[in-house]
Amino acid sequence: MDDAGQSLTQRAVPAKSLRTPTTVSPQMQRSIATMAAAASAGGGMPADWSPSTAPEWKAVIAQMDAQALAIKPVLEAMFPHTSELRQIAGVTVREITPATFDPAKSGLLLVHFHGGGYTMNGGEASTGEAVLAAHYSGLKAISVDYRMPPEHPFPAAVDDALAVWRALAAERPATSMGVIGTSAGGGLSLALALKLKEVGEALPGALATGTPWTDLTGASDSYQVNADVDGIFSNFGAFGRAMAALYAGPAGVEHPLVSPIFGDFGGFPPTIFTTGTRDILLSDTVRAYRAMRAAGVTAQLEVHEAMSHAEYIYAFDSPESAVAFTDIAAFFHAHLKG
Amino acid sequence: MDDAGQSLTQRAVPAKSLRTPTTVSPQMQRSIATMAAAASAGGGMPADWSPSTAPEWKAVIAQMDAQALAIKPVLEAMFPHTSELRQIAGVTVREITPATFDPAKSGLLLVHFHGGGYTMNGGEASTGEAVLAAHYSGLKAISVDYRMPPEHPFPAAVDDALAVWRALAAERPATSMGVIGTSAGGGLSLALALKLKEVGEALPGALATGTPWTDLTGASDSYQVNADVDGIFSNFGAFGRAMAALYAGPAGVEHPLVSPIFGDFGGFPPTIFTTGTRDILLSDTVRAYRAMRAAGVTAQLEVHEAMSHAEYIYAFDSPESAVAFTDIAAFFHAHLKG
Repeated sequence: MDDAGQSLTQRAVPAKSLRTPTTVSPQMQRSIATMAAAASAGGGMPADWSPSTAPEWKAVIAQMDAQALAIKPVLEAMFPHTSELRQIAGVTVREITPATFDPAKSGLLLVHFHGGGYTMNGGEASTGEAVLAAHYSGLKAISVDYRMPPEHPFPAAVDDALAVWRALAAERPATSMGVIGTSAGGGLSLALALKLKEVGEALPGALATGTPWTDLTGASDSYQVNADVDGIFSNFGAFGRAMAALYAGPAGVEHPLVSPIFGDFGGFPPTIFTTGTRDILLSDTVRAYRAMRAAGVTAQLEVHEAMSHAEYIYAFDSPESAVAFTDIAAFFHAHLKG
Repeated sequence: MDDAGQSLTQRAVPAKSLRTPTTVSPQMQRSIATMAAAASAGGGMPADWSPSTAPEWKAVIAQMDAQALAIKPVLEAMFPHTSELRQIAGVTVREITPATFDPAKSGLLLVHFHGGGYTMNGGEASTGEAVLAAHYSGLKAISVDYRMPPEHPFPAAVDDALAVWRALAAERPATSMGVIGTSAGGGLSLALALKLKEVGEALPGALATGTPWTDLTGASDSYQVNADVDGIFSNFGAFGRAMAALYAGPAGVEHPLVSPIFGDFGGFPPTIFTTGTRDILLSDTVRAYRAMRAAGVTAQLEVHEAMSHAEYIYAFDSPESAVAFTDIAAFFHAHLKG
């Protein structure tokens, strides 16, 4: 369709003001209201600006990581665990052992890739989801601190994911391991499985991809519909596009290991998807779920009312978060084979 | 939260202009673009106005029915079938026999309740979804032309649903019948199951509720987020609230047989939900799905990219519609017992 034709069929949506819904738990209402207030104050991720130099990137990354680090002590108090810093195949990982660890299930293991647009939330800011997944499943989790831009664009993250996976798979059945990640971590989980298909190695027993970043080209409809609606990843504007370009590098955002929606999901293990109705990556999630179903993969889609991108990690005190991780834990226990 | 507190936590969403997404099929792109153009021209369901007299209601209903009737010949050509007008227990029904009818499956039957806000899309405008469900499943469908306002508010629709159900259940196992409906028809499907629990009678073998209207109070978050985004049911404004009040009558919109979200889904049969990311009833759907999962019911959630309310019925030439009804047919064949 040419530009003139397209403009005739643009849907005009008037400005609106969203109240905090009463259809979610009090904890989730607090999370939504807090984010709305922060947005009013001009906080959150920048939309119409992006860093252009490595020092600018690092300043933004430090600012974003500070938010994850700020809530870490509260999360650690609610979900007791130990975290052991290790190296596996030369990659930094944190081995999370939850207080709920069930020795009877020690034949199963989770492998976790953190989110953060492939640019942020590494290091000590990377383990929140791994702690929650470990807690609710009673399993250990290996949280992979993969290399990131600005120094290490694609394929460093996929290379690190593959290196850790191979080392773990040398010691236990691939089907005994579940791979979990949210946002970029969900995309990286899918990219790892695509890469394993490419090299002809055994796939994980199951995947849990939360609101996965599957299309870095920005084509997903929810980037429009949930722009300035999502409380966590408010806008896929200049900053989102810059993150995508910085990560993809010369490979480009259409490479299937960068944007797994362009890959072939045939033969994938059972996969559970988690998202919310306010999620800016709702469409990235739904499109990947539909592509898996079309490829004959066992897939389960979990959508939560009024939930923003990855909010089940940050609103970890909410019943919605407990439901999300309980569903993920049940999915792993149904499909992993120790 | 008081009004002052609430206003501090309103999320301001600037006006936006939604392009037709490239992430859906050409047929779905055409559907979305056509609706966007109609919205630009001021067409569609009124938002800020509502009828106040019976003649005004009938005029609006006739106008809305005309849209369903206009596409009926095309639907009938694409999905050949016979439609026999009958009375069951004094209620008008249409028995749909698809050209795909499979005599080997004649022990199974679908019971269909049409959508239209409990006020419109009755009569000859009522059978589109039944034809599609019959086509894709190879089963007959009994499409129930239940009584509606302005003459017959709640509980007439539930009474008619129950009367037809009882007559059919006298002749075959309840578990051999699947109940299907979209929007108000999805709500009525859930209300029938709640009513059957109340009177202690056998439940259907499975339910397929498409974008069901489960909360007529208007509390769902998608009523805000997808307002003026959905191409079919654009706005739960004055007109939506008036439909809800007209249907509920003195029972009120919080009655669980009017708004099934306030009912108890424990013991419900397996249920498949269908919705889309632009659906104004996305939250009504997601909330009912979550309530069923919380009640231990086998439930499956199907969400389609950029799809508006009930668009899988109207864009019946799209691959997305075929996927939606193929999923529904597979679900019925997995769970109905002849």
